[in-house]
Amino acid sequence: MPAKKPLILVTNDDGITSPGISALVETMKELGEVVVIAPDKPQSGVGHAITINSTIRIYRTKYHGVEQEYSLTGTPVDCVKMAFSKVLKRKPDLCVSGINHGSNISINVIYSGTMSAAVEAAVDGIPSIGFSLLDTSIDADFSASQYYAKVISKQVLTSGMQKDTCLNVNIPKLNLSEIKGIKICRQARANWVEEFEERKDPAGNPYYWLTGKFVDYDKGKNDTDVWAVKNNYISVVPVMFDLTAYSALSPLEKQFSKKKK
Amino acid sequence: MPAKKPLILVTNDDGITSPGISALVETMKELGEVVVIAPDKPQSGVGHAITINSTIRIYRTKYHGVEQEYSLTGTPVDCVKMAFSKVLKRKPDLCVSGINHGSNISINVIYSGTMSAAVEAAVDGIPSIGFSLLDTSIDADFSASQYYAKVISKQVLTSGMQKDTCLNVNIPKLNLSEIKGIKICRQARANWVEEFEERKDPAGNPYYWLTGKFVDYDKGKNDTDVWAVKNNYISVVPVMFDLTAYSALSPLEKQFSKKKK
Repeated sequence: MPAKKPLILVTNDDGITSPGISALVETMKELGEVVVIAPDKPQSGVGHAITINSTIRIYRTKYHGVEQEYSLTGTPVDCVKMAFSKVLKRKPDLCVSGINHGSNISINVIYSGTMSAAVEAAVDGIPSIGFSLLDTSIDADFSASQYYAKVISKQVLTSGMQKDTCLNVNIPKLNLSEIKGIKICRQARANWVEEFEERKDPAGNPYYWLTGKFVDYDKGKNDTDVWAVKNNYISVVPVMFDLTAYSALSPLEKQFSKKKK
Repeated sequence: MPAKKPLILVTNDDGITSPGISALVETMKELGEVVVIAPDKPQSGVGHAITINSTIRIYRTKYHGVEQEYSLTGTPVDCVKMAFSKVLKRKPDLCVSGINHGSNISINVIYSGTMSAAVEAAVDGIPSIGFSLLDTSIDADFSASQYYAKVISKQVLTSGMQKDTCLNVNIPKLNLSEIKGIKICRQARANWVEEFEERKDPAGNPYYWLTGKFVDYDKGKNDTDVWAVKNNYISVVPVMFDLTAYSALSPLEKQFSKKKK
């Protein structure tokens, strides 16, 4: 742990009034000085979106009884950018995002506003963690999530984070006593098989709702995040933002070698 | 090239009326049967956002003289999902996104709607490419971009793509004769140093515009996309969506080993 009280930025994608962020704020208060900047409304599925074609407002709020607490009219990534650019007096020691109401395992990491906020902090060199509980209910029980959020955050505050990475933590919907512990995992190869549900408006014109089924195609056994949460473990996946597929560089070199001048 | 006429899905993030997508559609017509599904308005910076809290409409249009051409009230990723789920009769042989009006080198890949559409297609197992020209002007000259979009797309149609990857192609703002060729690169370690510009509304309350400066922190020499476009090359970066930082797995195992039950 840093010598002085750690400065911890808390954000999320479910919006500043969600029970998940309240649970995370309560836990982080035990570890350091907390600053909250979160979207003013739900932003699930916004991924790494930023607001560049419209303006942003930021308002002081008092939902969580924290001295520095703000609601922002943008995305989770906007919140992190605003925190670093305008609000925080110094670089925080940790940025935590969540606790998300719902899973962010596997491919969900690329759609998730929760995880995009954590990734954005990592881009700026701040140790960061996204927490998600596999329970979308407004009445979800966050107590096991809080226990493990504290354990993992303390560890990160003590040991730091590997450069240019952050953590994607998913917590199964279980009581603390049922959880078997923490499992370090890779992201499973799974995706969503989409179906757009067609409905008709009163004038008879079609509109669509995005829906779908999560399908795990991974042949791995006990090393993926999907496996971990199914088997009552907390999954912890180190996430990076260098998207270069290094193994493809050399084959591409060969393919395109004739096409270079 | 496939035996039958290749089916090519074209999308973008600047919206269906942008000159960049017109240029790409023209080029793809020379390579196969083209289907266009693009956002009805600019979606720059939306990253991998999907529309889950509101509905989506899709309209047939005739901007580009293509039989199957649609404008969609959502994000670039929504367009790809809708194409695969509702519009296309079979899996396309290629998905191309762009040509973006502006750079998507380095860290921009995570904010880019153009690249997120390509990544989404890759998640569904479709060879895909995002094209971006380093010129934001409405009057940008896309002729060199078209030349290289054809070269690269033909190569991908012929050789396919490494599993679970797509290509991020950036074209410098130059005449065809000034471009030195194609350079296979990694994503440079660069980011945006943000400054939110504060303004006051007529009532005297503050609002903000996101702005910033792109800073290249990379110590690499001639192997990054930033280097390539600065040195008059087309940069081609293979991009993946497995965000697992594999090199961090083992150190994390050690850190958390005491914390497992």
